[in-house]
Amino acid sequence: MKISKYPQKETWSELVKRPVLQREKLTELIADIFNEVEKNGDQALIDFNKKFDKVEVKNINVSEEEIENVENLISTELKQAIQQAKDNITKFHASQIVEIEKVETTKGVICWRENRAIEKVGIYIPGGTAPLFSTVLMLAIPAQLAGCKEIILCTPPDKNGNINPAILYTAKLCGVTKIFKTGGAQAIAAMTFGTQSIPNVYKIFGPGNQFVVAAKEYAQSFGVSIDMPAGPSEVLVIADEKAVPAFCAADLLSQAEHGSDSQVIFLSTEEKIFNQTIEETEKQLKELPRNEFAGEALKNSHFVLLKNLDEALEFSNLYTPEHLILALKDYEKYILKIQNAGSVFLGNYSCESAGDYASGTNHTLPTNGFAKNYSGVSLDSFVKKITFQHLSKEGLQNLGKTIEIMAEAEGLFAHKNAVSIRLNQENERV
Amino acid sequence: MKISKYPQKETWSELVKRPVLQREKLTELIADIFNEVEKNGDQALIDFNKKFDKVEVKNINVSEEEIENVENLISTELKQAIQQAKDNITKFHASQIVEIEKVETTKGVICWRENRAIEKVGIYIPGGTAPLFSTVLMLAIPAQLAGCKEIILCTPPDKNGNINPAILYTAKLCGVTKIFKTGGAQAIAAMTFGTQSIPNVYKIFGPGNQFVVAAKEYAQSFGVSIDMPAGPSEVLVIADEKAVPAFCAADLLSQAEHGSDSQVIFLSTEEKIFNQTIEETEKQLKELPRNEFAGEALKNSHFVLLKNLDEALEFSNLYTPEHLILALKDYEKYILKIQNAGSVFLGNYSCESAGDYASGTNHTLPTNGFAKNYSGVSLDSFVKKITFQHLSKEGLQNLGKTIEIMAEAEGLFAHKNAVSIRLNQENERV
Repeated sequence: MKISKYPQKETWSELVKRPVLQREKLTELIADIFNEVEKNGDQALIDFNKKFDKVEVKNINVSEEEIENVENLISTELKQAIQQAKDNITKFHASQIVEIEKVETTKGVICWRENRAIEKVGIYIPGGTAPLFSTVLMLAIPAQLAGCKEIILCTPPDKNGNINPAILYTAKLCGVTKIFKTGGAQAIAAMTFGTQSIPNVYKIFGPGNQFVVAAKEYAQSFGVSIDMPAGPSEVLVIADEKAVPAFCAADLLSQAEHGSDSQVIFLSTEEKIFNQTIEETEKQLKELPRNEFAGEALKNSHFVLLKNLDEALEFSNLYTPEHLILALKDYEKYILKIQNAGSVFLGNYSCESAGDYASGTNHTLPTNGFAKNYSGVSLDSFVKKITFQHLSKEGLQNLGKTIEIMAEAEGLFAHKNAVSIRLNQENERV
Repeated sequence: MKISKYPQKETWSELVKRPVLQREKLTELIADIFNEVEKNGDQALIDFNKKFDKVEVKNINVSEEEIENVENLISTELKQAIQQAKDNITKFHASQIVEIEKVETTKGVICWRENRAIEKVGIYIPGGTAPLFSTVLMLAIPAQLAGCKEIILCTPPDKNGNINPAILYTAKLCGVTKIFKTGGAQAIAAMTFGTQSIPNVYKIFGPGNQFVVAAKEYAQSFGVSIDMPAGPSEVLVIADEKAVPAFCAADLLSQAEHGSDSQVIFLSTEEKIFNQTIEETEKQLKELPRNEFAGEALKNSHFVLLKNLDEALEFSNLYTPEHLILALKDYEKYILKIQNAGSVFLGNYSCESAGDYASGTNHTLPTNGFAKNYSGVSLDSFVKKITFQHLSKEGLQNLGKTIEIMAEAEGLFAHKNAVSIRLNQENERV
């Protein structure tokens, strides 16, 4: 924990610096994996399962039977929880569907946009200790709402060749069309090129380790797009005199437990709240099962006492957190001052976990300062917006001279001619 | 021109193949330029102007005087044309502003999104024979509408060290905040790192040659985002018996004149229209000033006669054109069948030039098949969408159990605790 009280503004740029990621140069390794998968398809995936994940999987396809059986492996309680989360996420993402608005920009000239789903999308879900079925919800629900025809999911199998039941159950519930037992960079390669079993996709979503991150970047050179650049998770909490130190500490720790590279920042204007939150954080940390991760993460984290809330917002915008919690009495007053953040939680009862799981907002968010120029995942991430226009003969008459003059000024005479030939020709057939 | 009549569907995948781009490996050259600009700032740009563009520029800043004087260098006619285009582009892009809609996903749980402008954006405008002031309109207008604070523009100076007056005039008119005389990869490097004169930006827009394209890709590794991947311009025209061959030919040629790597595709269901369009294209080509480019482009282009319009739409979706013209009587019937396209022009009077200049739609569009997974530039390209949520105490009570169950199932106990601590604590202060 790094504690600063009333630091000079000139020092802020140091305070908001993120730990430099020691990311290995993986390009060659990734290129080799891509080559192998492009050449040998399913067999390459089976071989990589053996090599990297130490598991023999005869068939990378999850069978109908496995999917049917999963119902029995999930408790009713968890099913109900997943259902409530699904309902909320569906409601919020459905509200992002925009009605088509036709605009007559000049008499006879009508322009509009229509959404079309990206036809084929791929979701990557990491294996490991935490089975991220919540990420399945966050990616499959908007994909299905958008109308994507093919929604495939790749995730590494466990030591027995099985996929975590909660992931399988959620995928089935949310309309994932095909599920495959493959992970790592090879799964990303498979979704890029397609294999005998796995269809190629146009866009790949989802978190992963450094191999997956590097593979997603590499996939872009084959025309595949990705959800957003990756980085470790973060939260920044701003607390005034009405904040509850125990709540703030719990929020900071819920972020810190993600991994030792997570970062948490606490800003306060009240010294008493500030000190109590530090104490609470240390106290709660000891009781956590994942306190090793969280403890590591806290070492890189800043607790900063500031003069006033305007300063705190300025600091936050400079840092650009993935998650921002305003534990403030008058949080409404500060909403418009938020310039850079992924997702914002308002008041004492809006804990980050709510947005991580079940309130309805998406938890796939820009980290590492990318909220300066990227949005989190939303319905928009699964569609293209196509522009349409119709010009009547009158419309072209009203606009034609302008187009001709501009085209000529750019030296593009065929562009001009496409207008002139229409304006000059008396054609009864049209 | 490659002419196919009623090709078997199995051969379509060959017909929709784009010419392979001979793109040199520029990574090392680009990395050197970036290093140089990062180290020497403005002086590097002045040196590169000399080296690459053979022009001595003492100061890369466009002066107030140059901006003031430009008014006198533009004809009233062109000013009026630019104004009409600006009005339409403004109207259409302003219609993309979405009202904030708050959604109560569960009683006491309110979620919504708000737009925030990307604070600093950069526009690149190429030099060369065609002064693309229309692209200034297409990028600066939505940037200003979105509320970007810093909108800078880089473009290479001519042999006399001046910037094309139409570019300067349009930039001034559309709220560009600073203009710089620098082009090529070095301009992209300058916007990435910042120099003494040029502020760094978070997102870079605009077309360019292979050096600029490679530099934009490279800039992404420093956290800068870009408008979209680049490729040569394309149009696909679908014509039925009501189409006018002279119009179709003019549209095909207006695309072909962009460059020898442009591609145009003509699909028709009517043999008479098909043959007449081929004839007209050859005839009109001869009369064009840029017929060398257009002639080259036509060599790579397909004219395909098909059985019916459903087939034509299927072919078009497979090809995924940047521009799609439906020269059809009943174009409405086919709108919903369009799956992949950048921008669509409906009927006999909606020529592509209208959208290129003045109808209101944006002309910065995904080429090279990228319309499968990318949208064209719009107001959205200049904003981030931040999600917000507020949970009342009641809201958290309604949702808390779900969050606790899910967090526990993922093994994230600090996430669970952030809820439990709130639900369990009787706290009078909050």
